Amino acid sequence: MINCQVILSHRYLEEEELKGRTAVVIDTLRATSVMVTALAHGLRDIRCVLEPEEALMLKEGDSSLLLGGERNALRIPGFDLSNSPLEYTGDRVEGRSLIMTTSNGTRTLLKTAGASDVLIGSVLNAAAVAREAFSLGRDIIFINAGTGGEFSLDDFITAGAILNELPGEAALSDLAWAALLLRNAHPDLHSALKGSLHYRKLQDLGFQADLDWCLSPNRFDIAPRYRDGQVSVL
Amino acid sequence: MINCQVILSHRYLEEEELKGRTAVVIDTLRATSVMVTALAHGLRDIRCVLEPEEALMLKEGDSSLLLGGERNALRIPGFDLSNSPLEYTGDRVEGRSLIMTTSNGTRTLLKTAGASDVLIGSVLNAAAVAREAFSLGRDIIFINAGTGGEFSLDDFITAGAILNELPGEAALSDLAWAALLLRNAHPDLHSALKGSLHYRKLQDLGFQADLDWCLSPNRFDIAPRYRDGQVSVL
Repeated sequence: MINCQVILSHRYLEEEELKGRTAVVIDTLRATSVMVTALAHGLRDIRCVLEPEEALMLKEGDSSLLLGGERNALRIPGFDLSNSPLEYTGDRVEGRSLIMTTSNGTRTLLKTAGASDVLIGSVLNAAAVAREAFSLGRDIIFINAGTGGEFSLDDFITAGAILNELPGEAALSDLAWAALLLRNAHPDLHSALKGSLHYRKLQDLGFQADLDWCLSPNRFDIAPRYRDGQVSVL
Repeated sequence: MINCQVILSHRYLEEEELKGRTAVVIDTLRATSVMVTALAHGLRDIRCVLEPEEALMLKEGDSSLLLGGERNALRIPGFDLSNSPLEYTGDRVEGRSLIMTTSNGTRTLLKTAGASDVLIGSVLNAAAVAREAFSLGRDIIFINAGTGGEFSLDDFITAGAILNELPGEAALSDLAWAALLLRNAHPDLHSALKGSLHYRKLQDLGFQADLDWCLSPNRFDIAPRYRDGQVSVL
């Protein structure tokens, strides 16, 4: 029986827990939704870095690189793209490589090297990532990026949305069970998230179209993987 | 506006966070349910200790004391009562003092000294504790005892049950909001808890009657307080 657990933010992640397990990294609003969207639209690969300076230096060495991400939810000066998945259209990203830095999502991903496999999870690819994680046969840790190191309901309920798509039986920790219960009580995720902080912050910033996009279930049938420092579809 | 947040176990409790706030300690299965039941049945006060040896020593000095609690969910050798609220009947407890030690609940309570007020929360007294916490006017921290230092769904959904009874508006953290959503999706708490670990462990040990008792909403209209090392009804 596959065991499933949830880590509530990168702050609570103990890297040795990942050994021998499949990690599913979730930053629904919006980093992993950007990754899934961009790769589904033909982006070749994504390299995650901690700081904007590092991304800008890499671009100096290779001007064909795209730079994307955010600080305080907004585009970083000198970057090509923000953290809005709607910007990652085929005509902008197809065949290209992206360097990405965000406040929570990329930071979380960089701490997962110890896992056997690392998959990129979002509402957009919930069924595909559930199927892929289950087929690997190992215990699954859903790692919520969280917001500022704290619990963020959007990531948590996304873990529930992915658990809901698992193609077979699994043993759920109490947190995994709670995430599934929450998703099942709110299959329209907006109704749960309207009271949550990060959702409301993005609403206040005018990003309702991003929220609608990030919370559309199973728009893409890909399960991107993070390996050797890069995210790509195999 | 009163802010409400939830701490998922004593392991995540940073004691300086409590300063100037009202703490509501929750160990639904079963320590705080025992406390509320016993005090409602006329028990005078409860002193919490970390280890059974300490309780046994106190009783050597004062044989009128009752000893209650558990290790591995079962009665401790030499103790008068276990951690089953059903044992704390009026004829056993009225007018007496209890020394109590449990694996999670009393351990959690002993870490709350920094709060302005510490209330004892359970499903049994959800409305009374909500009213009392709200009337104190300070920010409220719901401290889940958890199980073995980890998230336990019974404590979390109890925080939701208490939040549901708040007599006025409050600003909820994402965890507090998630707890309330879970409770609202499962007003019959058993339906949520049947998939959770501690509930199932107690079921397997034959404690269904305890589970039924601990999950009955608003059986008692008291909000016990922990102060100067003792729990009592003021």
